[in-house]
Amino acid sequence: MGITREDTRQVVAVDVGGTDIKAALVSVGPESAVALLRRRRRTPRAAIDENAPDDARAAAGARTAELVIEAVSELIDELRAEADGPVHAAGVAVPGIVDEDRGVAVYSANLGWQDAPLRELLRARTDLPVAFGHDIRASGLAEVRLGAARGCRDAVVLPIGTGIAAALLVDGRMLRGGGFAGEIGHVDIGHHERCTCGAVGCVEAVASSAALTRRYAERVGRPVSGAAEVAVQVEAGDPAAVEVWNDALDGLARGILLLVTLLAPEVIVLGGGLALSGDLLVAPLRERLTALISFQRVPVLRTAELGDEAGCLGAALLAAGIQEDR
Amino acid sequence: MGITREDTRQVVAVDVGGTDIKAALVSVGPESAVALLRRRRRTPRAAIDENAPDDARAAAGARTAELVIEAVSELIDELRAEADGPVHAAGVAVPGIVDEDRGVAVYSANLGWQDAPLRELLRARTDLPVAFGHDIRASGLAEVRLGAARGCRDAVVLPIGTGIAAALLVDGRMLRGGGFAGEIGHVDIGHHERCTCGAVGCVEAVASSAALTRRYAERVGRPVSGAAEVAVQVEAGDPAAVEVWNDALDGLARGILLLVTLLAPEVIVLGGGLALSGDLLVAPLRERLTALISFQRVPVLRTAELGDEAGCLGAALLAAGIQEDR
Repeated sequence: MGITREDTRQVVAVDVGGTDIKAALVSVGPESAVALLRRRRRTPRAAIDENAPDDARAAAGARTAELVIEAVSELIDELRAEADGPVHAAGVAVPGIVDEDRGVAVYSANLGWQDAPLRELLRARTDLPVAFGHDIRASGLAEVRLGAARGCRDAVVLPIGTGIAAALLVDGRMLRGGGFAGEIGHVDIGHHERCTCGAVGCVEAVASSAALTRRYAERVGRPVSGAAEVAVQVEAGDPAAVEVWNDALDGLARGILLLVTLLAPEVIVLGGGLALSGDLLVAPLRERLTALISFQRVPVLRTAELGDEAGCLGAALLAAGIQEDR
Repeated sequence: MGITREDTRQVVAVDVGGTDIKAALVSVGPESAVALLRRRRRTPRAAIDENAPDDARAAAGARTAELVIEAVSELIDELRAEADGPVHAAGVAVPGIVDEDRGVAVYSANLGWQDAPLRELLRARTDLPVAFGHDIRASGLAEVRLGAARGCRDAVVLPIGTGIAAALLVDGRMLRGGGFAGEIGHVDIGHHERCTCGAVGCVEAVASSAALTRRYAERVGRPVSGAAEVAVQVEAGDPAAVEVWNDALDGLARGILLLVTLLAPEVIVLGGGLALSGDLLVAPLRERLTALISFQRVPVLRTAELGDEAGCLGAALLAAGIQEDR
């Protein structure tokens, strides 16, 4: 028996990233979400001088918020116009610190905005109900509902990209902590390198794809294109690549151990660019974690299933109202 | 206007500890819980040789579970018999790993039981509805509903006693993680001493009252009665006491920083014996935490308000059904 018309809702979903805005028209069913149409454009930003004073930076952040609202509204209008049938709602996920309850983008270091009431502004501009979420938690929700953590009550979804932060599902609910929860990239795991956040010893400072790239480039004294290049050199047996890769694995294992001790996930889903390395990442990480665990519940490690569409699909789930109380 | 009869429920609450079982007849109102009668007795244990084989230990654990059920049932019967009016339910909190959903005491290193279905056994024995909980989470719930974390949606209640574990309230809900959540005593904060759990670097190995006592005794070469004696020596300016006290503060600050980074509590409630030291603990801990925090939400540090009655009051709240879905 097929899914009937009443079981599915058509929504527009938008994932605002630091580089690109991804949007999709998504058909959301009881246990599925399928992108019917996709759009992508560069994330607009107000120009700002690196050395500008604080008030000029704040003004630029506010202006960036306006530009993003304009771009997101246009994407929603375009996809809505092309939709076959009514669009139930829009779902928008953004990075940084996000207060889902109030619909406010509290802060983004990358985009510069502060306390931008994006949900209300988008609702006014698009005349659609708008669900508003956090990029990491929206991606995590998609993996929990549709991907690698399907059926779990306790799971961590951990995208490893330029930065590292986690979506924390505990007792079947995605933790928010007022918008601040999940910053596993910035826990101290005992090394001596300084992080962009100002602290020393952060997971992110050795284990993000940006850190892998930078640390390998420092050792070989030439530009490196990204973590994928480091992975290739690891497989080729380059000692400098193996060294920084092992540092990243050690850092990730120690960060994950903290999550295991505090929250006891059954499953840990590794996502982001680094997860594309598959068993070059997962197998040695599993080995390290097994060696570190004493009394804790041992989690299953898996790679993400939804790739870089997870953010859009999560925003779509929020829009379809399937997970309103999560 | 007083609280009417319909707003309050009379329950029997029992807090099973490693040393004592505390029980109380408690009147639970919408925003209050008052112990009307109290009982206390030693926690019974099956005798077991230190070097006994595993199956003998398992049998002793099962026997201890039977003895505890017998003792708890008797306390419930006694308090019920003395109650003026009907008793709505019993609430029982126990230590170790507790599966609240199934009502099972999964494991206690201290009491030796494994997978003991205590809720069902107590219900059969007492012919009362029985709410079953975890000692730390029950105490935490009491501080959240009635004590130092009243009104918070995001809080950590951290009893510092022989061991260290936390009750984690996030988004208004107490985290369970299948019964494993909150083991902040066993995260690695980078020192080199071995913990009773087998790992190196645990918070508990330097910051529990047992660790403070042991580490001070090692330095002064004489028996020490407890952490309170160490605190007295800190105030007297004894360098060895100051050293181990500072190690404990450093360890606690680093452990709390992890909680702050991952869960963003608004309030951290310090409980257990060590919290009786008040500003000898809280003021320097606040100073250390402020120095360590970079981008994270800064929590308020407070001492617990309910003392060692928190466990019983939390069990009473569970029994009254006020917090059934937490």
